[in-house]
Amino acid sequence: MYELGVVYRNITRADRAATDALAALGSATVHEAMGRVGLLKPYMRPIYAGAQISGTAVTVLLHPGDNWMMHVAAEQIQPGDVVVAAITAECTDGYFGDLLATSFQARGARALIIDAGVRDVKTLTEMNFPVWSKAISSKGTIKATLGSVNIPVVCAGMIVNPGDAVVADDDGVVVVPRALVQKTLEAARAREANEGEKRAKLASGVLGLDMYKMREPLAAAGLKYID
Amino acid sequence: MYELGVVYRNITRADRAATDALAALGSATVHEAMGRVGLLKPYMRPIYAGAQISGTAVTVLLHPGDNWMMHVAAEQIQPGDVVVAAITAECTDGYFGDLLATSFQARGARALIIDAGVRDVKTLTEMNFPVWSKAISSKGTIKATLGSVNIPVVCAGMIVNPGDAVVADDDGVVVVPRALVQKTLEAARAREANEGEKRAKLASGVLGLDMYKMREPLAAAGLKYID
Amino acid sequence: MYELGVVYRNITRADRAATDALAALGSATVHEAMGRVGLLKPYMRPIYAGAQISGTAVTVLLHPGDNWMMHVAAEQIQPGDVVVAAITAECTDGYFGDLLATSFQARGARALIIDAGVRDVKTLTEMNFPVWSKAISSKGTIKATLGSVNIPVVCAGMIVNPGDAVVADDDGVVVVPRALVQKTLEAARAREANEGEKRAKLASGVLGLDMYKMREPLAAAGLKYID
Amino acid sequence: MYELGVVYRNITRADRAATDALAALGSATVHEAMGRVGLLKPYMRPIYAGAQISGTAVTVLLHPGDNWMMHVAAEQIQPGDVVVAAITAECTDGYFGDLLATSFQARGARALIIDAGVRDVKTLTEMNFPVWSKAISSKGTIKATLGSVNIPVVCAGMIVNPGDAVVADDDGVVVVPRALVQKTLEAARAREANEGEKRAKLASGVLGLDMYKMREPLAAAGLKYID
Amino acid sequence: MYELGVVYRNITRADRAATDALAALGSATVHEAMGRVGLLKPYMRPIYAGAQISGTAVTVLLHPGDNWMMHVAAEQIQPGDVVVAAITAECTDGYFGDLLATSFQARGARALIIDAGVRDVKTLTEMNFPVWSKAISSKGTIKATLGSVNIPVVCAGMIVNPGDAVVADDDGVVVVPRALVQKTLEAARAREANEGEKRAKLASGVLGLDMYKMREPLAAAGLKYID
Amino acid sequence: MYELGVVYRNITRADRAATDALAALGSATVHEAMGRVGLLKPYMRPIYAGAQISGTAVTVLLHPGDNWMMHVAAEQIQPGDVVVAAITAECTDGYFGDLLATSFQARGARALIIDAGVRDVKTLTEMNFPVWSKAISSKGTIKATLGSVNIPVVCAGMIVNPGDAVVADDDGVVVVPRALVQKTLEAARAREANEGEKRAKLASGVLGLDMYKMREPLAAAGLKYID
Repeated sequence: MYELGVVYRNITRADRAATDALAALGSATVHEAMGRVGLLKPYMRPIYAGAQISGTAVTVLLHPGDNWMMHVAAEQIQPGDVVVAAITAECTDGYFGDLLATSFQARGARALIIDAGVRDVKTLTEMNFPVWSKAISSKGTIKATLGSVNIPVVCAGMIVNPGDAVVADDDGVVVVPRALVQKTLEAARAREANEGEKRAKLASGVLGLDMYKMREPLAAAGLKYID
Repeated sequence: MYELGVVYRNITRADRAATDALAALGSATVHEAMGRVGLLKPYMRPIYAGAQISGTAVTVLLHPGDNWMMHVAAEQIQPGDVVVAAITAECTDGYFGDLLATSFQARGARALIIDAGVRDVKTLTEMNFPVWSKAISSKGTIKATLGSVNIPVVCAGMIVNPGDAVVADDDGVVVVPRALVQKTLEAARAREANEGEKRAKLASGVLGLDMYKMREPLAAAGLKYID
Repeated sequence: MYELGVVYRNITRADRAATDALAALGSATVHEAMGRVGLLKPYMRPIYAGAQISGTAVTVLLHPGDNWMMHVAAEQIQPGDVVVAAITAECTDGYFGDLLATSFQARGARALIIDAGVRDVKTLTEMNFPVWSKAISSKGTIKATLGSVNIPVVCAGMIVNPGDAVVADDDGVVVVPRALVQKTLEAARAREANEGEKRAKLASGVLGLDMYKMREPLAAAGLKYID
Repeated sequence: MYELGVVYRNITRADRAATDALAALGSATVHEAMGRVGLLKPYMRPIYAGAQISGTAVTVLLHPGDNWMMHVAAEQIQPGDVVVAAITAECTDGYFGDLLATSFQARGARALIIDAGVRDVKTLTEMNFPVWSKAISSKGTIKATLGSVNIPVVCAGMIVNPGDAVVADDDGVVVVPRALVQKTLEAARAREANEGEKRAKLASGVLGLDMYKMREPLAAAGLKYID
Repeated sequence: MYELGVVYRNITRADRAATDALAALGSATVHEAMGRVGLLKPYMRPIYAGAQISGTAVTVLLHPGDNWMMHVAAEQIQPGDVVVAAITAECTDGYFGDLLATSFQARGARALIIDAGVRDVKTLTEMNFPVWSKAISSKGTIKATLGSVNIPVVCAGMIVNPGDAVVADDDGVVVVPRALVQKTLEAARAREANEGEKRAKLASGVLGLDMYKMREPLAAAGLKYID
Repeated sequence: MYELGVVYRNITRADRAATDALAALGSATVHEAMGRVGLLKPYMRPIYAGAQISGTAVTVLLHPGDNWMMHVAAEQIQPGDVVVAAITAECTDGYFGDLLATSFQARGARALIIDAGVRDVKTLTEMNFPVWSKAISSKGTIKATLGSVNIPVVCAGMIVNPGDAVVADDDGVVVVPRALVQKTLEAARAREANEGEKRAKLASGVLGLDMYKMREPLAAAGLKYID
């Protein structure tokens, strides 16, 4: 359930350095590092390929077809933030276009994550302002009803608290709770550290079956080879 | 993000009397009384028509295809509870059937709300154990991975905290935060109080246009009648 | 494209007797009689099984999450009408409940066809007021934006003009243009006339292959039987 | 890939007695007994609640919007068969209504499983002829293109070979390969044999945690209880 | 309901100059200029990014899996037209490929808008012939059943009359009724005229809250800031 | 129904030369050449545009959320193979990333076709390793349950036998049974042979109506032109 009509101005953001360092690791590695939780539903897709970002969440709750609170959220953006927008019901309207993107970018926002639609995607691409969304739609919105800013929201099936770290790339969007950012960063780096060696082995033709020593557990589980 | 592998045993449940009184008001009236928030997505449907319940939430987080934690949750059920089950990814498997229902019912559970599938629906109907679910499926699950019990979960798009009140009927499922149950009950009763009078007027042929005094604001908004 | 903010009061309704006679024939037969056009998309489902109606369309165009025009439409209902509601964007909100149903029924409406959601379905069932809808949802709507009444609308993929005949049953919803009602009724009756005889033959074990003389065209098309 | 334009007349059906005995066990138990494979996708739903059947598959491959081969299939039906219909592309048209049902029933068919739509569902319900389908639609079909009868088909994501056993009830539809019917029946009966005892224990308040001895493996997996 | 088997040869097209001028404004601005109506459903997506067109509609109604009328439509194309294709039922087949595109392009068509599938998308991209469609599919179609050309159709939820203006870009597809093209163009230009100034302000850090003078109405609506 | 826990090592692959020659013809032409069967559902999309491949199928059956058998499949890959992965239930998890792709590529695999999700799509694109999938998702999988390798599977609605030829491009994925590869290649080449001439005619303005001699059959079917 949501608290309506409130804006929390003083949120505690996840550690900046640790949050920023998550971008290079990517959503898949970060997701693994958290024990395979924290992922937004895979219908969330980038409006253009190749963007890879991390940042601290400013959350906004919107009503269907109404983007009034986007302007309220803009004021709460600090450099390094990512705006995470949830809607109180399913909606594919285009809540966000080039004007809001100009404002968000001027405030230092790195991206928008929205469980609805966006528009002006050609201009957003030219502006290099990435968005992960459920839809793309020319349909505009009105400005009539209060939602909230910086309350906990559910975006694409996942709880996002204001100040949480968000990691997004071509594979999807992952949320890391503020208190777990440093630990997750370390776990993600540890995962990645030995990937180079693994990749070299696999590229040389070594099988995962041998590299990961899977033959014995597979046999134990009853796998049969038939010639 | 979810905390995995934990069971909170001492949750604070919403006021019993107020929670129980919500059932008769129904999900639509309660949803209105909360300012039109708190509703689970409308793909959540009852397995049989006519059930109308309320209760306090015992939450459980499950992994796709794995219902191990359902048995852990059973032990945490107290009479008057409703089990609310979330899954870490989309899944339609049948997590719940007549044996678990027998156990839940023996513990005093009034219903299951699950963002996945159930099975044995004919028997569940005969047992008068209502379930609201995303799917019905014969597909069983394994018991291999830890989730959690009584942590905040996202079920069908809505945050549910352990101890919150849940209201479910043929129209859907609404969650009322524990702290708002009494206030919501009062607001819901106030809404309902004058519905009888309205219904009588409308049944006699009075138009909502007149009863709600809409003609003036409609004209002000520019509505034109063309003969 | 839609004309907004207008109510056409003087619509020409399809012939009453012919329209009323379509109900008994059912949507499938009527759909065939029109050459397999006129069907609303099959996601339109009745809120309870067994209702079978026909009537003349009063159309209403609504905005997402806003049912203001439903009250405007109520005034335009005449006995024998069916209200056909279209939305300017996808929406599953519950636009219609027991109070509006009471009003519609008092005005003589036979049913509601809505490309969105309804609520209070248990009460609507008890009232014997059938609805065909895309969804069932507790989520209420606001009353803020003008749509129109009795303009041509697109409901579930099909153009519906005010005054057209509508036929709905467990199989779906079909629209018959006003000018074609009499002709469609005759064609539908002709189709049905010899169904009794066909049914008797098939029940006695005669195959459609023989009754419809399909063996020769099947062979001509190249069908091969393999023993 | 499918062989088009052929009808296999001499198929080997699964053992009659074993096939017939599967109905009482139900789709969920049979699915478990096969190691959780064989289930058609859960979008396959019965047109009315309560039917529970098993039978031997007569398969038919149809083209979108064309039910010509249904009549060819009718001739291949023997008492105790279930017709399983696949379509070469996604389609929700109503391929099957009361006339074909009369013919199928006269030939001894017990049910239709179709990865598309059906119509005349009110009459089919009165006839007590169950159908599991993807959709209900008034939209009729033409008779113009050859498919095949009694070839292996993919229905709702599952391979069905002619002569396989099919089990369907409110929980869904399961296919048992002809060669595995006896073994599956035994495994399903074994599963069910001790369900009565389990149910009694659970009804008395014994927890699955204790009955299934889950406390130790849960602790080993790291489950923590927090008071 | 649709009239089948007819081709209207003499349609009145929207004003050429005004129609052509709409392309540069884009679908979002045009949609706003019309009062937020006229948009096709957002599942309509371009087969490649970056195309931005406008033109006058030649409409065609097709049957599922049958593209015969596409060839009939080709003859009705005049330079500056956009073909808008509707289907009588849901279908994702590939109705259109490089040969038809060659023909359409030779006749002067600027684009295809189709509520179904297309194929040869790599070649279409090389040809610079844009298509907005519901799907991409290798599945071909037959040529067996009559539809119509230049009748009013419903495409992706919107009525399109022959001769209407169509605007399409990466954000979606909007239809402007023939009679409203000039007025819509003016409204769209007015909207765009002051966007440059707004963008400059927002880029300099001015907030929409101040630029649009939203602070007072937000406070009046009850918005609370919490530190 | 699937055989679980087996790996068939000695499969017979479709003729290499004929299989390889199919790539240049593309999925649409090959699909036509087979009589419009063999196409996987159109929700299967390439992770990047422009790849066009053919190869022999190594099939793998996986469980939801479990990619253990991918490693088993890797060992069975021979140069020129395409791995075709089916899942026993609907799942969008990311079963496959850059490490497995490195291994598959080292073994000579040309592509992956998977009825689920993949991740690391940016790296896969850089590696030039194409994947056709149902989803893109950061969500990783576990390695716990046996499936099978080189059994017949259903992938995106189509039966794929080990050794079958697979053709995939921007238009979709088509499967050609091993025994039909040579014949299909010839039919596809025949189709393509006269496309150049047709294209030139259409580009010069000749209508398909005339080139295909459709005017007479259209008139015979009753098409009417109205001026």
